[in-house]
Amino acid sequence: MNTDHNTVSIGEFTFECGESIPELEIAYEAYGEFEGDNAVLVCHALTGSAHVAGPRDGNGTAGQARAWWDDIVGPGKAIDTNEYYVVCANVPGSCYGTTGPASEHPETGEPYGTDFPAVTVTDWTEAQRRLLDELGIPHLHAVVGGSVGGMNVLEWAKQHPDHVEQIIPIAAAARLDPQCLALDAIARRAITTDPDWNGGDYYGTDSEPTDGLALARQIGHVMYLSKASMDQKFGRRAAGRDAVRSFPADRAASFFPYRDVESYLDYQAEQFVKRFDANSYLYLTRAMDNYDLSAGFESDTNALAAFDGEALVMSFTADWHFTTTQAEALADAMREAAVDVAHHVVDSDHGHDAFLVEPENVGPPLSDFLAEGLGGSAISDTVDEETDTGSDFAPVHTSLFSD
Amino acid sequence: MNTDHNTVSIGEFTFECGESIPELEIAYEAYGEFEGDNAVLVCHALTGSAHVAGPRDGNGTAGQARAWWDDIVGPGKAIDTNEYYVVCANVPGSCYGTTGPASEHPETGEPYGTDFPAVTVTDWTEAQRRLLDELGIPHLHAVVGGSVGGMNVLEWAKQHPDHVEQIIPIAAAARLDPQCLALDAIARRAITTDPDWNGGDYYGTDSEPTDGLALARQIGHVMYLSKASMDQKFGRRAAGRDAVRSFPADRAASFFPYRDVESYLDYQAEQFVKRFDANSYLYLTRAMDNYDLSAGFESDTNALAAFDGEALVMSFTADWHFTTTQAEALADAMREAAVDVAHHVVDSDHGHDAFLVEPENVGPPLSDFLAEGLGGSAISDTVDEETDTGSDFAPVHTSLFSD
Repeated sequence: MNTDHNTVSIGEFTFECGESIPELEIAYEAYGEFEGDNAVLVCHALTGSAHVAGPRDGNGTAGQARAWWDDIVGPGKAIDTNEYYVVCANVPGSCYGTTGPASEHPETGEPYGTDFPAVTVTDWTEAQRRLLDELGIPHLHAVVGGSVGGMNVLEWAKQHPDHVEQIIPIAAAARLDPQCLALDAIARRAITTDPDWNGGDYYGTDSEPTDGLALARQIGHVMYLSKASMDQKFGRRAAGRDAVRSFPADRAASFFPYRDVESYLDYQAEQFVKRFDANSYLYLTRAMDNYDLSAGFESDTNALAAFDGEALVMSFTADWHFTTTQAEALADAMREAAVDVAHHVVDSDHGHDAFLVEPENVGPPLSDFLAEGLGGSAISDTVDEETDTGSDFAPVHTSLFSD
Repeated sequence: MNTDHNTVSIGEFTFECGESIPELEIAYEAYGEFEGDNAVLVCHALTGSAHVAGPRDGNGTAGQARAWWDDIVGPGKAIDTNEYYVVCANVPGSCYGTTGPASEHPETGEPYGTDFPAVTVTDWTEAQRRLLDELGIPHLHAVVGGSVGGMNVLEWAKQHPDHVEQIIPIAAAARLDPQCLALDAIARRAITTDPDWNGGDYYGTDSEPTDGLALARQIGHVMYLSKASMDQKFGRRAAGRDAVRSFPADRAASFFPYRDVESYLDYQAEQFVKRFDANSYLYLTRAMDNYDLSAGFESDTNALAAFDGEALVMSFTADWHFTTTQAEALADAMREAAVDVAHHVVDSDHGHDAFLVEPENVGPPLSDFLAEGLGGSAISDTVDEETDTGSDFAPVHTSLFSD
């Protein structure tokens, strides 16, 4: 696979909040050969990087042992890099090579810390647009992404409706619900009340806010799983005898089992704090929480009215972070906007992370859609098309969502 | 209402873990007149107290402005104190008058802190049994409680099957699922990684682990609500202009709204840390996590086999902390144990806290059951009784749960 991983400067960048930085560097990876009409932009999720596919590289993704969508992107895979020129860029505010709070402020020589401007999904989209300009790619065959990466996909259809043929928001929604807003706010509070956070000024010190960031990650991790997947994966069983807590516990704890589910989350958190920056976690969750497709418009439908491409909305039945109900509302908004859309619901015990861990279910509809559009045989829809055909009646949703 | 609020010593107490304390004091309240066969024991939930009903008292429930089940317990209410003698005791390990980590060790004159023995729901039940002995109450008409208080109810039927006529576990289960175990473990980690926790030794200092306890409470609070109730209560709207964060935030936060849902959870947390002890939160969540009805038996059914009273299991459709599916499994275990049981499911948008905030739905079946048993007209069951009657067939569950 022809892989390009690089960092380019797009110069001064003014964020939606009105503040600017003198230079925005963007880390990106690109796979395959650009042929003018075959570019696919992949948008990563909250703590992802530009490193979508292929072997580990040494460029800014330290700690990520494995490309995050290697099961989906590559030669002969669902997003076939023999067919498509695939680009993924790390978003502004993140910590995997693109400028963010941990980056050096060129004027002070110190890390920005919390002097970094607030970032939004709109900023991410604008940065991607300017990166593609640098790469000489005016037009995209498709934009695809999961979770907040799916919000990034929607923002492309809203901001640049004429630059994209196909959009594929996966495990996404037009906005977060208040339950998820609450959990994200608790996660941020865990970081900012860690004394080692120190107002965001901890770079280069011996003590980073790892306790707070570990809690934030664990809260997030529970949101990515489901009751069913946690039952199957852990049940209530005790962890192996080698498992020990890496943080203080009360003496009475020794009377009770250290459970497998705890041990797993603790291990995942310890790994995460080695690879992710606490300030970036604050910035990126704020961007996700703030995202609202309808912002600046009267409705989601109006926000998408200028997009005349095709859309494949994909969701997963056990996902409680971005629910199938939210995905159906999004698909309905597209239908009202006369966007050609299918809402493909995957029946899955996995939760939100199904889009990462079920390539066998995600790949076929994705591959078919890229190649053939909505006619692809692996694509299902919550609306039974037949009931809409040649009829004077309003569309009938003979579906999961027919109440 | 004749109310008795008092603290009695039951002397030395040996916990399930094998450790003892020289003196266990139990704070309790009692309402109504004991007439030999009319005693009802109410079991409180995780952070509750003995103060179930009536006006605020000055005895150990500081900070709880309101009795926690005043809508249900009182003269002429569902648990009618004109009819029943109602007793509620604060559980060992808590901080509302019963001996716990914050209590003074009689030999050292210092608070126990984390030298307090590990506590279990079995210990709570044993302490209640000994309190009732002190009060001269050998036999209970009913034991009722919600959430972990419902686990306490189940433990009564398991440990003292001949001492109870009726059990009413509400919004409860035979054990927590791994998703809830995970969230409780994260909450404890928030407390024990707060530097002010200091190994549990913070009493009498200027700095208590309020940051950690606030996070723990907020995680719990989200578990008590539902997506639907949070949508209705908060949506995504910003908090009022007077609302300000009481903890540090990053500078970029000022670009985004401080949302009503955040402000609410922050306010609730600030109130909670004034009234609850962080070590007690560790001890009581461990007791809840550890509870398993089947412990010491081969199954839940076997654990309940000796109980020949009646049971009313009550659950709420939007409760994701203790689900209707878990409640149905519990009811099924009772059916297999030949316990006369009804599983009354309340259709509700509220989550776990429905048992506290929907007295109009909880009260009638509860009242009917206490007075008339399972024949009460306000009681429904997930099993259609008719399909079981006079038949050679195995019971058919024509219900929500019929898959």
